[in-house]
Amino acid sequence: MIEFKNISKQAPYKVFVNLYNRSLKSNQKNIEAICIASYSLNNNEVNARFVNLKFINNNEFIFFSNYNSPKSKDFTSHNKITALIYWNNINVQIRMKASIKKTTKDFNNAYFATRDFKKNALAISSNQSQVIKSYESVQKKYKRSLKNDDLSKCPDYWGGYSFIPFYFEFWEGHDSRLNKRETFELCDNHWKHGFLEP
Amino acid sequence: MIEFKNISKQAPYKVFVNLYNRSLKSNQKNIEAICIASYSLNNNEVNARFVNLKFINNNEFIFFSNYNSPKSKDFTSHNKITALIYWNNINVQIRMKASIKKTTKDFNNAYFATRDFKKNALAISSNQSQVIKSYESVQKKYKRSLKNDDLSKCPDYWGGYSFIPFYFEFWEGHDSRLNKRETFELCDNHWKHGFLEP
Repeated sequence: MIEFKNISKQAPYKVFVNLYNRSLKSNQKNIEAICIASYSLNNNEVNARFVNLKFINNNEFIFFSNYNSPKSKDFTSHNKITALIYWNNINVQIRMKASIKKTTKDFNNAYFATRDFKKNALAISSNQSQVIKSYESVQKKYKRSLKNDDLSKCPDYWGGYSFIPFYFEFWEGHDSRLNKRETFELCDNHWKHGFLEP
Repeated sequence: MIEFKNISKQAPYKVFVNLYNRSLKSNQKNIEAICIASYSLNNNEVNARFVNLKFINNNEFIFFSNYNSPKSKDFTSHNKITALIYWNNINVQIRMKASIKKTTKDFNNAYFATRDFKKNALAISSNQSQVIKSYESVQKKYKRSLKNDDLSKCPDYWGGYSFIPFYFEFWEGHDSRLNKRETFELCDNHWKHGFLEP
């Protein structure tokens, strides 16, 4: 589930919310899964991974990560991303382009304290995406954290990322392949609306 | 469905095929959906979109596209991609890194001739991702093509892309969040196997 904290009244957000509600009704599994594609300037390579989109607060999209992870390094080297949602139950793809930035330490602390402590043990114990000897050593580190760490205290290396899209594309697949592609692009503070060929 | 034409005997392909079979058994919708993330050198931006993965032929992954589309321009400017599969029924993500190149004209012609002619009318009539006035004009162009064009003849601007991954990451989600992340990286002609922290 994505938690909508306020709903922006801007045009693309209305389309987004309508599609989200349709997707929710269809019992879409992992409805909060969103692919974040980033570019690493250092490695001159593009990367992508799914994360859980937690909040849409007015027009701000928020997910959480380890701040030492490869994606965080990508964001530091190049702060433009593309975000991609695909709800397969209703055959809809939503593409967004945005700049990305960290949420504040206060926001991270407050949110961390509300989370399931088991999740927090993992956030504390894992050096996300670092090479490790075995899956068993992951489990060991996690159990040690569960026992020994203050699980309400957000570590400095964990927190949110937020982005406000300046471009939306809503793609609706049709059996005929005459897929509908509708776009919204922010130009001088208003949303320019258009269609793309399928 | 993805069509396996031969199955590579290399280690990561065995893992891939096992997960594919599990996913297939779970009745995964749109099992062939694969996200291709690319980098546009001209616009200095990363992009991503889902396409249909049609074939895995030995160790080569193949999908089709309009060759004048934005993604084709991205591939021309920067030929490294990341490809991402997410099978939500079994909560598995597969990440691959590769260089990408066009398939041959002969291959494209032969495949095009086997396709449903209705699909071909769309491939011929659509300037993929170009801005257009309305969804109705898409339908009009398509109908004109259905009536007037030779639907067995592959146009020059349509064909396949193929990539052979040099990196695989298999991510299996667990309720505990102790997700299992297994990697295979091609080093001097052999696959180096490892694990990543979740």
